[in-house]
Amino acid sequence: MHDATGFKQRVDTYLRRLADEEEAELLRLSGELVPLCVQLRRSLTSGKRLRAAFLYWGWRASGQPDCDGVIKAAAAMELVHAAACTHDDIIDDSRLRHGLPTAHVAFADGGVRMGGTAVEQPGGIRQDRCAGLAMMLGDLLMGYAGKVFATCGLPGAYVARTVPLWSALLRETIAGEFLEVLRTGNAVPGVAESLEVARYKTAKYTVERPLHLGATLGGASRDVLAAFTAYGLPLGEAFQLRDDLLGTFGDPARTGKSNLDDLRDRKPTALLALTVSLLTPEDGRLLTKTLAGPRLDESGAALVRELMEHSGARRRVEDMIEERIARARAALDSVALPADARAALGALATSAADRTL
Amino acid sequence: MHDATGFKQRVDTYLRRLADEEEAELLRLSGELVPLCVQLRRSLTSGKRLRAAFLYWGWRASGQPDCDGVIKAAAAMELVHAAACTHDDIIDDSRLRHGLPTAHVAFADGGVRMGGTAVEQPGGIRQDRCAGLAMMLGDLLMGYAGKVFATCGLPGAYVARTVPLWSALLRETIAGEFLEVLRTGNAVPGVAESLEVARYKTAKYTVERPLHLGATLGGASRDVLAAFTAYGLPLGEAFQLRDDLLGTFGDPARTGKSNLDDLRDRKPTALLALTVSLLTPEDGRLLTKTLAGPRLDESGAALVRELMEHSGARRRVEDMIEERIARARAALDSVALPADARAALGALATSAADRTL
Repeated sequence: MHDATGFKQRVDTYLRRLADEEEAELLRLSGELVPLCVQLRRSLTSGKRLRAAFLYWGWRASGQPDCDGVIKAAAAMELVHAAACTHDDIIDDSRLRHGLPTAHVAFADGGVRMGGTAVEQPGGIRQDRCAGLAMMLGDLLMGYAGKVFATCGLPGAYVARTVPLWSALLRETIAGEFLEVLRTGNAVPGVAESLEVARYKTAKYTVERPLHLGATLGGASRDVLAAFTAYGLPLGEAFQLRDDLLGTFGDPARTGKSNLDDLRDRKPTALLALTVSLLTPEDGRLLTKTLAGPRLDESGAALVRELMEHSGARRRVEDMIEERIARARAALDSVALPADARAALGALATSAADRTL
Repeated sequence: MHDATGFKQRVDTYLRRLADEEEAELLRLSGELVPLCVQLRRSLTSGKRLRAAFLYWGWRASGQPDCDGVIKAAAAMELVHAAACTHDDIIDDSRLRHGLPTAHVAFADGGVRMGGTAVEQPGGIRQDRCAGLAMMLGDLLMGYAGKVFATCGLPGAYVARTVPLWSALLRETIAGEFLEVLRTGNAVPGVAESLEVARYKTAKYTVERPLHLGATLGGASRDVLAAFTAYGLPLGEAFQLRDDLLGTFGDPARTGKSNLDDLRDRKPTALLALTVSLLTPEDGRLLTKTLAGPRLDESGAALVRELMEHSGARRRVEDMIEERIARARAALDSVALPADARAALGALATSAADRTL
């Protein structure tokens, strides 16, 4: 539904062309940069383009027409996301994303493929250096984001008024990540603290700010911006809560990522916080003991999943998602919007909450 | 000399004000972000402001007057550098910069000071997470760079024409870092490969591109840009060669950084490459054996320094620096420049090459 204009394909096409151009530029500097190019392309050619969709519909909701400029601006948002994912995967030491090895894991693999040809790393890349290489890939992606947004072709005055929003997006996202890292692996925080992290790290970053960026580019009214906050924060929290469920109960073959990592790291999710608060003291001790072990295995994870189910926490998280989606939908009804934008944002709310990957 | 206009102090003042503002914004999000604020301030309140100076004099060389806008643009260049240093220190696991613990080391310290007050981390920050926190600090600094440059106050058309240069700067710097990481710890590369890394990682990044940024903002002619390449590349190489010497022969009490790290990591410096090429086979084997050990100690480092001295490599590197400074100076004479810019760039060439920190 939100892809009625084929805009996802247009974002993908633009990013593929960017990968072509940047690969040529990098290889002009040195043929040894092949592994960087391979990972760069991977980073640019997958993703749901959800943040791009919110930016796009923020623009359309402000009454602006479809155009190439907004596609490029939306692509810049995806570049920010590609950079953030690359750095996030290093922090979490995640092994898989979209079913493929993450950048720092791929660099450590010692050989990469470009086109159909295997390219060997002379001597292999030292394991302890691969996170550094992936960090640089993320830095490069973030730089592309700045370039693409600055040259998207929309009027300079439109672009200029988004500067404070980009600052806010970055500050909030990093604050959320920072708080999550501080709290990960420590005593399980309460549900409120978990939702605080989710608000900064996901709700503002994934939904509210991309909508604000598009709407501010388009010159939307304060009412529209306020409605996008009222829609974006609950929807974004729902998105994170769904992500938490998929990160523990999801099928890796469908989600393309591990369903053990969150538990192993004792990620301070609302799901875990709720489980702790709902268990009997005895089951609580069992949970703590299971999670405290040196490296959680499949049978330990199965036990934790059982406790999450049996305590009613999983069901409660589903209820929280439903309640938040309803609030997001109600916010859409509180403001005048073009019919196609309203329909697309309604569909995005459904798909974000019901997704299986 | 290059600070005739007191511009370093103006850059420092601007960055201190930015730290104040950003600290207030971050603490409004959460009081737990104190450690991030402390490191942010440290990152913004030290440095020689060399890259800012080149940007500033690139602008002045194009015939433009001193103004607040160019100070902000120069401050943006320093923010890029602060971000790059933070990420570089993670990759190299450097412990000290400007005599203070680097960000990832400071986060691991478990307690930080803000104002005069010690702030304890609740539970301490997990050691394996500190690199991630420092990575985010770098991301935040890079984001500030974009904001400060975009809002520097110079005409939008001036700012817009620098976009391809920022892309080039980022691409070249990351290419240089990437090549250095690929080559670090492996077989010692030749002098030419070492200088290739130095060209991308230092010469273009530290001298040529900041000059180009200032000159392009100011609307300089192609001749001026070409002269800045002819001046910047040898000067930047000289800067790196001096850095290599200080990284091995420098006094940590003066340089504010370790004089063991480069050797321990077997950094592929021209100094090391030259030493290998000049030693007798017997001494060469001794060098290889000493560097190959699990963790080089002070006596091992003293032996390597002795071999670098005795082979004549240290002297050769000094000669290479001198020859490059002469070429840089000659390039300045090849083009018409305002007298104050010419004098400042001449003084910068001297101070970059002769520096002791």
